[in-house]
Amino acid sequence: MKTPFLPLTLLLQCSFVLSLHLHPLDPLTPEEINETSIIVKKYHKGNPQDLAFHYVDLEEPDKSHVLRYLHDKKPRNITKPPSRRSLVVVRTGGQTHELVVDLTASKVVSDHLYTGPGFPPFTFIELFRASKLPLTYPLFKKSIIGRGLNVSEISCVPFSVGWYGETITRREVKATCFYREGSVNVFARPIEGITITIDVDSMQIVTYVDRVTNPVPRSQGTDFRTKNKPYRFSCKVSDTGFETRGNIIKWANWKFHVGFNARAGIIISTASVLDPTSGKFRRVLYRGHVSETFVPYMDPTYEWYYRTFMDIGEFGFGRSAVNLQPLIDCPQNAAFFDGHVAGPDGSAQKMSNVICIFEKNGYGASFRHTEINVPGQVINSGDADITLVVRMVATLGNYDYIMDWEFQKSGAMRFGVALTGVLEVKATPYTNNAHITENVHGTLVAKNTVAVNHDHYLTYYLDLDVDGNGNSLVKAKLKTARVTDVKVSPRKSYWTVVKETAKTEADGRIRLGSEPAEILIVNPNKHTKIGNTVGYRLIPEQIPVTSLLSEDDFPQIRAGYTKYPVWVTAYNRSERWAGGFYTDRSRGNDGLAVWSSKNRDIENKDIVLWYNVGVHHIPYQEDFPVMPALHAGFSLRPSNFFDHNPLPSD
Amino acid sequence: MKTPFLPLTLLLQCSFVLSLHLHPLDPLTPEEINETSIIVKKYHKGNPQDLAFHYVDLEEPDKSHVLRYLHDKKPRNITKPPSRRSLVVVRTGGQTHELVVDLTASKVVSDHLYTGPGFPPFTFIELFRASKLPLTYPLFKKSIIGRGLNVSEISCVPFSVGWYGETITRREVKATCFYREGSVNVFARPIEGITITIDVDSMQIVTYVDRVTNPVPRSQGTDFRTKNKPYRFSCKVSDTGFETRGNIIKWANWKFHVGFNARAGIIISTASVLDPTSGKFRRVLYRGHVSETFVPYMDPTYEWYYRTFMDIGEFGFGRSAVNLQPLIDCPQNAAFFDGHVAGPDGSAQKMSNVICIFEKNGYGASFRHTEINVPGQVINSGDADITLVVRMVATLGNYDYIMDWEFQKSGAMRFGVALTGVLEVKATPYTNNAHITENVHGTLVAKNTVAVNHDHYLTYYLDLDVDGNGNSLVKAKLKTARVTDVKVSPRKSYWTVVKETAKTEADGRIRLGSEPAEILIVNPNKHTKIGNTVGYRLIPEQIPVTSLLSEDDFPQIRAGYTKYPVWVTAYNRSERWAGGFYTDRSRGNDGLAVWSSKNRDIENKDIVLWYNVGVHHIPYQEDFPVMPALHAGFSLRPSNFFDHNPLPSD
Repeated sequence: MKTPFLPLTLLLQCSFVLSLHLHPLDPLTPEEINETSIIVKKYHKGNPQDLAFHYVDLEEPDKSHVLRYLHDKKPRNITKPPSRRSLVVVRTGGQTHELVVDLTASKVVSDHLYTGPGFPPFTFIELFRASKLPLTYPLFKKSIIGRGLNVSEISCVPFSVGWYGETITRREVKATCFYREGSVNVFARPIEGITITIDVDSMQIVTYVDRVTNPVPRSQGTDFRTKNKPYRFSCKVSDTGFETRGNIIKWANWKFHVGFNARAGIIISTASVLDPTSGKFRRVLYRGHVSETFVPYMDPTYEWYYRTFMDIGEFGFGRSAVNLQPLIDCPQNAAFFDGHVAGPDGSAQKMSNVICIFEKNGYGASFRHTEINVPGQVINSGDADITLVVRMVATLGNYDYIMDWEFQKSGAMRFGVALTGVLEVKATPYTNNAHITENVHGTLVAKNTVAVNHDHYLTYYLDLDVDGNGNSLVKAKLKTARVTDVKVSPRKSYWTVVKETAKTEADGRIRLGSEPAEILIVNPNKHTKIGNTVGYRLIPEQIPVTSLLSEDDFPQIRAGYTKYPVWVTAYNRSERWAGGFYTDRSRGNDGLAVWSSKNRDIENKDIVLWYNVGVHHIPYQEDFPVMPALHAGFSLRPSNFFDHNPLPSD
Repeated sequence: MKTPFLPLTLLLQCSFVLSLHLHPLDPLTPEEINETSIIVKKYHKGNPQDLAFHYVDLEEPDKSHVLRYLHDKKPRNITKPPSRRSLVVVRTGGQTHELVVDLTASKVVSDHLYTGPGFPPFTFIELFRASKLPLTYPLFKKSIIGRGLNVSEISCVPFSVGWYGETITRREVKATCFYREGSVNVFARPIEGITITIDVDSMQIVTYVDRVTNPVPRSQGTDFRTKNKPYRFSCKVSDTGFETRGNIIKWANWKFHVGFNARAGIIISTASVLDPTSGKFRRVLYRGHVSETFVPYMDPTYEWYYRTFMDIGEFGFGRSAVNLQPLIDCPQNAAFFDGHVAGPDGSAQKMSNVICIFEKNGYGASFRHTEINVPGQVINSGDADITLVVRMVATLGNYDYIMDWEFQKSGAMRFGVALTGVLEVKATPYTNNAHITENVHGTLVAKNTVAVNHDHYLTYYLDLDVDGNGNSLVKAKLKTARVTDVKVSPRKSYWTVVKETAKTEADGRIRLGSEPAEILIVNPNKHTKIGNTVGYRLIPEQIPVTSLLSEDDFPQIRAGYTKYPVWVTAYNRSERWAGGFYTDRSRGNDGLAVWSSKNRDIENKDIVLWYNVGVHHIPYQEDFPVMPALHAGFSLRPSNFFDHNPLPSD
């Protein structure tokens, strides 16, 4: 029997919860997560100890169904919402099962045994257990005593291990251990040279290597805490603020839905902007979230070569979201929201204050003009730059990512990343840069401490629906034109715009910056009143950064999508995770680069824009013991979307 | 007699003023401007009507003298400050004279007749008179009546004309006229097709061409004003704020001097940052300001080809600084400062509220970290991102530039530009984009209104003295390295840093983004305690933009420095204005590109960093009737300058 019997009270509760959904993309509620868990456990029938929940999320509903439901005019709405379904990945008996649970029918409707390469994300209990395993391991204790250190002052951190061409892979982590003694900055004091490989399924140490002994960096100067309390500044930004209705946010001329899951963290859905001419909301973004991160370190030595993290797929950005600190992470006017994820046993876990939403004063003008050419008058106009920010912070071990989704009254959306936290450092015998004669693969940031060179790629999934589903990618190239006839003009040159519409996904892989061009997502079926094609354009806030790893290198094969900053693909409900769904130990046979290689048509289709915010990080001493936030990001700005600038009319 | 006799009262006033200077780079005071004018007029002896002051500024004092004076330890200070001198450019008898006035000695100490190409900036009275000239010109009145328009509703705006290979040039402007009737947006309604060339010295129309008649765009939809009043938000950012002592600003760990002149607007001098280890201020920037702007339009037709403005040299950024609007241009916590410039008659003119200084809350963390790997604890740390901004807004006709100098507690400086205002548009018969079959050199942004394609280059002069005068340019190039020995590592590649120190100015011309590299200005004579070379690095906030005009095109010859985003040159007191000192009708024989071609040594020398913030502007309908602010800029970030991150210790 696949439909479990539920007590009446729970049934009532569930149906109450299910009917509460104001939006079909609402994330699973705690009740839905728990119901999913109950249904799966009933279905499983085996030993509950041998059932671990690695992934529980709303199964992505059919997009056309969602849109039909949302845009069906009330009160005659005759479209039923898509049924609530969970997508679940469990491990049992050493195998990976993908289950789909129908929450309305209270049953498992699909069960697929996954036998391909790669594994689902680690559970927190696995990582916790793996972190404790070395502390009781005799060889490790011997290594530690041999270094004159105290085991009780050690914290070990399990790292994902990537894939290096092995034909058979196990679920493994490598534990790296740090010496706390006298410092809260765990990552600043590595016990270098010990590599402990742990089989996560059996939770056993399978390889132990103690290869190098370097001095543990001193604790002095590693404290990353401020002495001063955060200042309680008073800051009222506007009279109006924003409104919430369930997970739907309304602010100024924007309306959108905020979701949260264990993998992506914040998900923005069905974002629409008010057209000041028609008074109607027009669609911009169907669904957007961070899809993957890739952080390869640039040290090929035994202890470091494997550090090529794909945190979102291996650990989860939502899973790693922090309880936001008022006045530091979010200003005084912020509202805080919780998220809910499934624990390893499938039960709902509340994550408090993982999202904050606030109005931000940009301390500048959103537009301005002073006009002195009207006789006898000086005409000043402008408005303060007030925006709405939806923020989360993900802390992946040593690193902290501050992720902003910023909505502007101009109709622009800004996607901001601030990188901060603690650098991953390596113990070294060197105490002065002048003594270093070899390649240490990083910068000496303190005595005995090398901060290792690395990259960051934060890949955004942006299912844009600019004024509807049928969208195209346009490259507006700036080309120098020559004036050859001196009778026409004393000028010899100027630039002109040559627009190219991408036909297939091959045209959608863009080497930004290789030539002067603007990148637009347009709706070729919609025009402004004066006949321009409506669109949004991409504005990067940095020199584009792409991976410098060789094409044949294993980490690059896994993260092939980091070779271009911009990709445009055909929409497919299952194509959301740039590094592939099963990222841990993946082999590059799933993910953005593979989907794009299908070379599907992308002209006047439902298309997805992918953008890599990339950072090559050469460390400097200022990045130690904690790094000043480094800002990166990009904007999408309406470009012939409106009939005019919407700002002065507000 | 060159030393004028001054009434006792004035003498006393002057000596009082002169002794008041707390900093040798203080801009000329109103009293000093007036004294300069009196001295020059006495010296001139001729008809005062035939003496126009085009440029009055502090003569740049000898840098070594300034530094010796500032760093001579008190109270034993035995170094006298450099004597106060004005650099004056006057036009008289159709000729350009460069005068140096010694204000202490009250006399003209040098008089040089300038006979080279190019002219000094226009005076406002010249521009005003030129703007009125067409309104009484019979042929113009005929043209206007022929178009069915009313002369009383017309505003004409004089534009600089550039240089197109003429061997003999006169001081000319071309007036373009606009129809106000029913709109405050003067620039939105061009009366296309009429080109009126005015000799500015004789203030006569010398050529009149009425070549094309296009409909004047309608007034509807051109109003750029908001209906709502600026919201009086309350926003206290910190308890401390900043201190001023004369023109010297002290805030957090920064100390710097703010000046203002007619050409550059804001000038930041002798900026130093506190070293948390030594407790001493260390030098970063000797002098920085915007040096030139270049705004070429991309329409080669008769009415538009010449529009290739170099506003700073032709008109002056300080001259064009606006009276800042509280709550729109600057937040409620801003302090406002006046500037003083010389009028055409040499007398001091006060420009009210042209600078504002305020603490800015970035609404994020300057750094943060959450540490969960200390057993039994969750350690949170971080601080709010509070910075200090020095701002001005320059409105050059239709365009508004918001210019920020932002100081960060991390030791970084951010240079922000926001472009807004009204686009320069061209009247066209077209009312719908679908009907356009020719190249209109821009975008149809409203009926009968084409916003013309153009560029902006804002060139920063940054005389960096990183921890002293002897500085070098280092390119830290990221190069892919191959791992060939599989016994060493399963990795096949990584990147490594190859540092190249620039030898001469040819190495100082940098095509940013052509290869992955970080650009640093280092002091090769200074090292951190652990032996890293101290430095600051450049972080652009955009894809680098350089000019697409042909090398042989006249505007490009004049603005040759726009072919590279970054230049580094040897310091020379007279090399400050990238487009040459006499910019109006210049021919490219003075300026950054010429100085750089000397190919001087720049290794371990006093060097200057030049950065072009460039924007290719393809207009969109949202830019009409006023443009939402478009942000650009760059940062200079300490990079092994400090021994550690200065943030947590504050």
